[in-house]
Amino acid sequence: MTGTVAIVGVGMIGGSLGMALRERAGVGEVRGLDPDPAALEAAVAAGAITRAAGSVEEAADGAEAVFLAAPVRRLAELAGSVLAASGPDCVVSDVGSAKSGVVQALAPVQRERFIGGHPICGSEGSGVAHARADLFEGATYFLTPTAETRPALYERLHGLVSAIGARPSAIDAAAHDDLMAMVSHLPHVLAATLIHQAAETAPKGREALRSAGPSFADLTRVAGANPPLWADILLANSGSVVGAIRDQVGRLEGFADALASGDRTWLQSYIEGAGAGRERLRAAGAEAVSEPWRVVVSVPNRPGVISDITTALGHAHVNIEDLSLQSGAGEEAGVLALTVAGAATAEAAVRLIEAGGYTARVEAVD
Amino acid sequence: MTGTVAIVGVGMIGGSLGMALRERAGVGEVRGLDPDPAALEAAVAAGAITRAAGSVEEAADGAEAVFLAAPVRRLAELAGSVLAASGPDCVVSDVGSAKSGVVQALAPVQRERFIGGHPICGSEGSGVAHARADLFEGATYFLTPTAETRPALYERLHGLVSAIGARPSAIDAAAHDDLMAMVSHLPHVLAATLIHQAAETAPKGREALRSAGPSFADLTRVAGANPPLWADILLANSGSVVGAIRDQVGRLEGFADALASGDRTWLQSYIEGAGAGRERLRAAGAEAVSEPWRVVVSVPNRPGVISDITTALGHAHVNIEDLSLQSGAGEEAGVLALTVAGAATAEAAVRLIEAGGYTARVEAVD
Repeated sequence: MTGTVAIVGVGMIGGSLGMALRERAGVGEVRGLDPDPAALEAAVAAGAITRAAGSVEEAADGAEAVFLAAPVRRLAELAGSVLAASGPDCVVSDVGSAKSGVVQALAPVQRERFIGGHPICGSEGSGVAHARADLFEGATYFLTPTAETRPALYERLHGLVSAIGARPSAIDAAAHDDLMAMVSHLPHVLAATLIHQAAETAPKGREALRSAGPSFADLTRVAGANPPLWADILLANSGSVVGAIRDQVGRLEGFADALASGDRTWLQSYIEGAGAGRERLRAAGAEAVSEPWRVVVSVPNRPGVISDITTALGHAHVNIEDLSLQSGAGEEAGVLALTVAGAATAEAAVRLIEAGGYTARVEAVD
Repeated sequence: MTGTVAIVGVGMIGGSLGMALRERAGVGEVRGLDPDPAALEAAVAAGAITRAAGSVEEAADGAEAVFLAAPVRRLAELAGSVLAASGPDCVVSDVGSAKSGVVQALAPVQRERFIGGHPICGSEGSGVAHARADLFEGATYFLTPTAETRPALYERLHGLVSAIGARPSAIDAAAHDDLMAMVSHLPHVLAATLIHQAAETAPKGREALRSAGPSFADLTRVAGANPPLWADILLANSGSVVGAIRDQVGRLEGFADALASGDRTWLQSYIEGAGAGRERLRAAGAEAVSEPWRVVVSVPNRPGVISDITTALGHAHVNIEDLSLQSGAGEEAGVLALTVAGAATAEAAVRLIEAGGYTARVEAVD
């Protein structure tokens, strides 16, 4: 059980984290830090934090975990100062939408205690007034452990994330950024470019924006949301987003060429392919519920192991429902116990783990 | 009152037209023609048509209006045969998603009686089983009169379209196609290219399609719908769609360049611009209800006039709620009475009509 947590930035996400940690994870003390005194006051009033801290040092003092829920472009600097102010056994994480930048900005020794995070959830509106304890319920919560990550700190962070109702999933930071560029950042860019194009399209004076139906409105729903926040997110992930845009441009050019040449067979088969993809997307949302099974791994007592194993499973879409670690003494092997859904998933997890050079076995859960 | 109408193609749209014409427009006889006997039987059983016709001649015999609700690539040929089989006072229209092709395929003399149409509405599912009388309620229904359009036939078609609950709006066929390329066809293409890209994106094996959230699902909702139908629609409007895709590609490249160069000011202002456009889109959906006003136009008794006036208003987003025409004898001037919403709209309509060289005045509706 974690007793004290600090949250830096008590907006919608930070506030929701505080509420969820208090109400669901049994965290006794949640300290909040924010440059805006009114936000801190509102966070206390809303029960998102138990008390406001006046400095990074005051927030971090004695905390077992610190979450950074500040604007994405401030995260690297903040991570440095929070790591410096916090104790040697405190895990520091963030909730930013791009992960490589902050992880790479830190020194290897800093990465022993810093583990990037990104909950995939959002809400209309910003600020602690829109915070809610159930925000993370069922949401994928990406964690980006590295070779330096201290296993016991990953275990603690995984436990907190699970306790607030989210589904922790380990992922390589660069893979995370490519993934988000594809499923979130590129769609955001497309919504904006599509709206701009529609705003400038008015054949014979008939304005496209005034002639668009509900399906165009759906497609562009995210356009224009929170410009400073989104400019920061896109800049923080610019490499992956530029790559995703250029990839999309190539696909559009291919489509235009096929259409211009009147290639009906290609068009029909391309649209059929999109239908098949859409079906896979739909199926992914409806996972079967299975009995819990345990995967027991014998692991050397050193960093790197936890990242190897959890990201191998995360990349393969194996969800770790519960993770507990018994460290060996000194150089001795410890035991990592993972709970996954279903016997088949457990068998697949064992194969993935063994492919990484570890020894693992499946165990039924009593 | 129109007594007899024929519908060629009794699918979802054709069937709904039949139901709406019978239930709402008081049309006594609706004949249906379809290559599929089972569809005809189902249409009779559903009350979408009063009887099945065995040939174009039988369907068109004595009909005052014929609607073509067949696949878009068959429309030009069908229009020709229906015009040949129908009487000299029968108006022929269609419901295709692209308009220039069919209008241009016809000879000027055929365009005296053929007026392209396109109701902006749809429904999940296809076939007469999904037809419903209220499908057109409140929907924009584009009509594409030309210089050759016979005014009395436009009046009849406008009346039928209004009677089924839709809002007829005259538009130049090419402008219509550019507009649809922007608000409907390009978004469809983008949904497909986005799904294909996501299906092929799997950094470190983590599949983008299995990691996408509800907002990505919203954006790509239309992807893969009805491949043969959509291949036809896109091909029927290929010029405009290719242009719209290339326009979008240029915008995406501009965005990628700004992002790659780290131009935060540009990005933020671009996203703000998208937000403003999104707001205009939202406002367009919430039109104020106003008192009806009448615009009375003195018009020479010849074709061309009706197209001039109705498309000038349609392009300017002035909705003609009611249209009635009193033709003059021989060369004498007739009177065109238009009902629009609100005094300000009526004044604007007069200015637009006078700009075209006609004489018009506003009249209060009793």
